[in-house]
Amino acid sequence: MRILVIGAAGMVGRKFIERLARDGHIGGKSISHVTAHDVVAAVPPKAPFPVDVIASDFAVPGACETLIAGRPELIVHLAAIVSGEAEQDFDKGYRINLDGTRFLLEAIRHAHHAEGYRPKLIFSSSIAVFGAPFPETIPGEFFSTPLTSYGTQKAIDELLLADYSRRGFLDGAGLRFPTIVVRPGAPNKAASGFFSNILREPLAGKEAVLPVDESVRHWFASPRAAVGFLMHAAAMDLSAIGPRRNLSMPGLSATVGEEIEALRRVAGEKTVKLIRREPDAFIAKIVAGWATNFDTARAEALGFTAEKSFEEIIRAHIEDELGGNIGG
Amino acid sequence: MRILVIGAAGMVGRKFIERLARDGHIGGKSISHVTAHDVVAAVPPKAPFPVDVIASDFAVPGACETLIAGRPELIVHLAAIVSGEAEQDFDKGYRINLDGTRFLLEAIRHAHHAEGYRPKLIFSSSIAVFGAPFPETIPGEFFSTPLTSYGTQKAIDELLLADYSRRGFLDGAGLRFPTIVVRPGAPNKAASGFFSNILREPLAGKEAVLPVDESVRHWFASPRAAVGFLMHAAAMDLSAIGPRRNLSMPGLSATVGEEIEALRRVAGEKTVKLIRREPDAFIAKIVAGWATNFDTARAEALGFTAEKSFEEIIRAHIEDELGGNIGG
Repeated sequence: MRILVIGAAGMVGRKFIERLARDGHIGGKSISHVTAHDVVAAVPPKAPFPVDVIASDFAVPGACETLIAGRPELIVHLAAIVSGEAEQDFDKGYRINLDGTRFLLEAIRHAHHAEGYRPKLIFSSSIAVFGAPFPETIPGEFFSTPLTSYGTQKAIDELLLADYSRRGFLDGAGLRFPTIVVRPGAPNKAASGFFSNILREPLAGKEAVLPVDESVRHWFASPRAAVGFLMHAAAMDLSAIGPRRNLSMPGLSATVGEEIEALRRVAGEKTVKLIRREPDAFIAKIVAGWATNFDTARAEALGFTAEKSFEEIIRAHIEDELGGNIGG
Repeated sequence: MRILVIGAAGMVGRKFIERLARDGHIGGKSISHVTAHDVVAAVPPKAPFPVDVIASDFAVPGACETLIAGRPELIVHLAAIVSGEAEQDFDKGYRINLDGTRFLLEAIRHAHHAEGYRPKLIFSSSIAVFGAPFPETIPGEFFSTPLTSYGTQKAIDELLLADYSRRGFLDGAGLRFPTIVVRPGAPNKAASGFFSNILREPLAGKEAVLPVDESVRHWFASPRAAVGFLMHAAAMDLSAIGPRRNLSMPGLSATVGEEIEALRRVAGEKTVKLIRREPDAFIAKIVAGWATNFDTARAEALGFTAEKSFEEIIRAHIEDELGGNIGG
């Protein structure tokens, strides 16, 4: 099986390719080749199959034709300008998040017409397709009224993916990831950064800042679960999803207080004491507009799974990032 | 007030401009100029203001810049490749229904950045943004999972309209029209044509074919109501809609049997006898996938109104198209 990963240098892309290298197969099919694409050169792990690294802008005419020249059976499309940047730079967000995706879909469609090519395409969408106000739990049939350009672009991509699948040009699935915690690496300035910071930093013996109240509730899954969503979608028969090709992935609805309590149980009071309360009204206001819970019955019935407690999320981080060790 | 109508040669566009010519103003503002655009030359009515007719393809670079050169305060965008054609010709549907709309939005955005231009934009969307299976009544927050490329394109346009409005580039509203009955003119081959044919033809003393069962339920408004939606949106303060800029318009949920019963009450048994039952399984199957009823509380609270009975719809047709006279 030949695989193309677009957005291979990002956190989820990197971890997905690591998993491919470890497993060597997906759904019983041996992996023969991976193309790792990003705008910067991805650094692939050692793998039992050849990995081509391509660094290019995929949102220019002809770029996607090159990317699919080897006719990969599976394409995992993770590339995106993130929410904050897409909001600040309108042109760039639409160019990458909408036009780039459309270039990819069109390249596939033309290869479909020419040769009957029809790859499986897994697309990483986002819960940003939803816009407040929300019901307490967002139903599976809730409408997309995004309040960011990023969410708008993802919602449009979802519609295109469903139409191109319905037409038979490709076999697609759009997966709306929960907020990923614990994100490895350094603290970042994203408004959602603190959800990871208050676990990752204390677990490494460092201080972290909590800018919101402990009552704040949000929607989470681990990087391991995110890779699991991709692996599951890649292995399954996507026709089982039916024509509604975009799905909110399972996740954990939890408060910051529950998050901290789980950290206490896993790592003890000394670690929790490294969290410093420093209320930030600006961040609190942004986060108040985010969804807190989802009805994911459809994704679960299709076999997608995520963590059921914050302790599981924390233990996944300790195993995958800290070699099983807590403390700085 | 300067007004641009895109899609001015279509049925709703023509009737909208006739209404403008009759009223001479919208929401208390005198109309100073109308540009009537379509791919073919529209034939405007006599009007108390100058009407420019432009025939061009609006989905090519530069065309929309020309259309908005006079900086119309109100733009009514009705242009579309219809459902059947967009399904048969994938490229044409996306080019007109998606790219054309995007060219228009981009032309406005660039004029916004250059000069602070910020027109009101009324867009005709469609209930085709929804895809079966449906609940019996489609709630106001129901998701868009279209089952046609036309519906996909309209749903994407809705998302763009909301994002461009949110950004302040324009002040937009997307109106999802019910199926329009009674359509004037000759019977056409659209799957929905019979809903109009079985009224219009008998009222003109001619036979009409009914291809489905009388129990079939659907969602209707008159051409007069459709023009009324546009007039109301053009006159109102669109900020009252809030960030969810796309609305299902009010309509009448009725069965074919109720439609025929209303015809009997208005025009008598002799007229109803001109309807010939000729079941067509193909059309019956298409129509079975259509929505039957909508919760339009939000649009109604904003002051949009439509007919409450099929008798009203039939009487509107007799007044507007037949000069008050029934019979061939």
